[in-house]
Amino acid sequence: MSQLKGNAVVGQSGGPTAAINASLAGVIRGVLANPDAIPALYGMKNGIEGFLAGDFVSLLPLFSDETKLRHLEQTPAAALGSCRKKLPDPAKDRAFFDGLIEKFREMDIRYFFYVGGNDSMDTVAKLSAYLETVDYEMRVVGIPKTIDNDLADTDHTPGFGSAAKYVAVTLSEIVRDCAVYRVPAVTVVEIMGRDARWLTASAALPGAISGEGVDLIYLPERPFTFEQFTEDLREAFKRHPNLVVAISEGIRSPEGRYIGESAQSGAADAFGHKYLAGAGKVLEQFVKETFGCKVRSFELSLPQRCAAHLASETDLCEASLLGSSGVKAAVEGKSGVMAALERVSDEPYKCSVVLRPVGKIANAIRKVPDEYINAAGNGITPAGIAYLTPLIRGERAVEYKNGLPIHVII
Amino acid sequence: MSQLKGNAVVGQSGGPTAAINASLAGVIRGVLANPDAIPALYGMKNGIEGFLAGDFVSLLPLFSDETKLRHLEQTPAAALGSCRKKLPDPAKDRAFFDGLIEKFREMDIRYFFYVGGNDSMDTVAKLSAYLETVDYEMRVVGIPKTIDNDLADTDHTPGFGSAAKYVAVTLSEIVRDCAVYRVPAVTVVEIMGRDARWLTASAALPGAISGEGVDLIYLPERPFTFEQFTEDLREAFKRHPNLVVAISEGIRSPEGRYIGESAQSGAADAFGHKYLAGAGKVLEQFVKETFGCKVRSFELSLPQRCAAHLASETDLCEASLLGSSGVKAAVEGKSGVMAALERVSDEPYKCSVVLRPVGKIANAIRKVPDEYINAAGNGITPAGIAYLTPLIRGERAVEYKNGLPIHVII
Repeated sequence: MSQLKGNAVVGQSGGPTAAINASLAGVIRGVLANPDAIPALYGMKNGIEGFLAGDFVSLLPLFSDETKLRHLEQTPAAALGSCRKKLPDPAKDRAFFDGLIEKFREMDIRYFFYVGGNDSMDTVAKLSAYLETVDYEMRVVGIPKTIDNDLADTDHTPGFGSAAKYVAVTLSEIVRDCAVYRVPAVTVVEIMGRDARWLTASAALPGAISGEGVDLIYLPERPFTFEQFTEDLREAFKRHPNLVVAISEGIRSPEGRYIGESAQSGAADAFGHKYLAGAGKVLEQFVKETFGCKVRSFELSLPQRCAAHLASETDLCEASLLGSSGVKAAVEGKSGVMAALERVSDEPYKCSVVLRPVGKIANAIRKVPDEYINAAGNGITPAGIAYLTPLIRGERAVEYKNGLPIHVII
Repeated sequence: MSQLKGNAVVGQSGGPTAAINASLAGVIRGVLANPDAIPALYGMKNGIEGFLAGDFVSLLPLFSDETKLRHLEQTPAAALGSCRKKLPDPAKDRAFFDGLIEKFREMDIRYFFYVGGNDSMDTVAKLSAYLETVDYEMRVVGIPKTIDNDLADTDHTPGFGSAAKYVAVTLSEIVRDCAVYRVPAVTVVEIMGRDARWLTASAALPGAISGEGVDLIYLPERPFTFEQFTEDLREAFKRHPNLVVAISEGIRSPEGRYIGESAQSGAADAFGHKYLAGAGKVLEQFVKETFGCKVRSFELSLPQRCAAHLASETDLCEASLLGSSGVKAAVEGKSGVMAALERVSDEPYKCSVVLRPVGKIANAIRKVPDEYINAAGNGITPAGIAYLTPLIRGERAVEYKNGLPIHVII
């Protein structure tokens, strides 16, 4: 173990999650536990983009006690702000990295922690590769987060458990809501993730855990056909009149075309074509025309990734643990790695922290395994349920003031 | 006080809320407290419609202890099921009421409690009026509930506080989510209530309570113009780049036309015209064309009325209190009344239970007072905030199992 004394910098990047600030709290805890190695910790505002513009904040004075760290943990979305900056190839744009190292040198920064998903791990990998070519000792460690759960080389990703819990709890409530009337009705709930499908799989949890859940679940892993959908609904109507259907926004036809028109080609910019419908609206219209029954659809939308009031305690604890473990690993000499989770057992649930080389992770995607989806392509198997269930367990005793959760604004 | 001994029946009617089962729990508690007057309590399945078809359940054996009642209280949407049956005019259709009384007589039912909104109070009023003309002693009491908060003669309505808390907490999280990037962006959040606007007003709570909230709020009480909206956004962009706009689904033009195409004429049935856009989508498209910035819109949808995991403790307590108070009033001889709330003071918040004649309530609507909306028509005044704030205070310690809230299914 080589001793390296110097300051640290931490950034948050990519899309919001309910647990990304628990990761940050973990990094702060890790630094507080190593005062001899790391005297100061700077938070980059809006990730590396803000840092390059000179925007950062000294974090240790702000989070001197556990109460403040707990408030940080119950705050959704990157408290430091985020960015979507992709770094250049270090082999091609050395000037960019030289400028970055110059800034680090000025501030005596020897530790670099970056919380994020694929793009953030790409940043860690590039900086790590560049550092091997220059005479500046610095250690860089990635801390994973994404609601998509699609990072490679880790059992799961902080942020996903809380998003899955939001989806599961909300659907359990929607199913109750839909059960109060006796008239035939279909409610289509569209879940985030055009290419990442794990979150839609968590729609199976209410049924598996409580016995009352959604009737059908469609993931993009299997082609979606209206014929099968019609057949599935007919079968489901035989059991009860109020059907709830959970779909991924990214479901596709056998030819690979998105069912949602808005998903097909970046509808956000399609001026000429008004109100392109998402997959839920397309299915709503189809059900109306085919069954003539009451039907509605809606998207769970942003709350899926920011409903910190309903965070999974398991998720928050693991996020913090990975943050502090990343710092510990760096202090002990590791660099170019991501702090990851390896599952030891489902029941009792146990994961251990492992360090993985970040290079492989940056450009890989972890998909829902085929054995987690049932043969009919409209539900999740017991193996999938066994994987998902522990991740949503536990509730944080969120502190409220005047009816609202306390949020930390940096 | 005239003594009346006999069984009781209770029903739930109208749309789901997060507190409607707390009202039911209150009725059960009220009956348990009066065993001499009321030996048995029957729950109508799917309201009076199910009861007429012979579908009911004996409730006291199911809810013999406080733990079960607490689980009932944390279950969203009518546990007994609901209906939207409107009773005929007792002066015109005596046969209908004769049949009903015959059923009551068979089961020795002397107390009738009905939990609901306007239509339910109409049921109570009609049954009450009919009972005055026949030789069958029975007492009927209405227990208010609606997320719309539009019932007359009560300070507010159980169910509203929890819905308002959901809107306020969710918006406080969405505002955090939207704040992480620095690029100009507009997020339009559409809130339930085509004709009832109280819920949209609660979007002002995050800003008033924590200092960080939505930028603009539009209620149908004031005409909506795209000119003013453009001006409001321009002003708001001067303050920060990430704007969050809360709108009622029922906002209207100065001519009284709904801004949302889908709200204009029951779009649910408009086969020929695909994907009619709600008000949020119309505004999204307008912002895209006018400002060219990143923009998105979504509806808070069903979770507003069924997110029991985030219920207001104040709301749940008042719902139960009105339920038990309604029973107490009936046992003491009252009939044809609704148990209502009268505010004593805002700070410290205090409401007392009062009994109001149900006849007047059934056909009245309580609107958001003009003095609760600011002069610009894009926000809520301190008077409105003072009214709303106490209603979302307090959090129930919801009991979870395996990551999901425990729900009672009757």
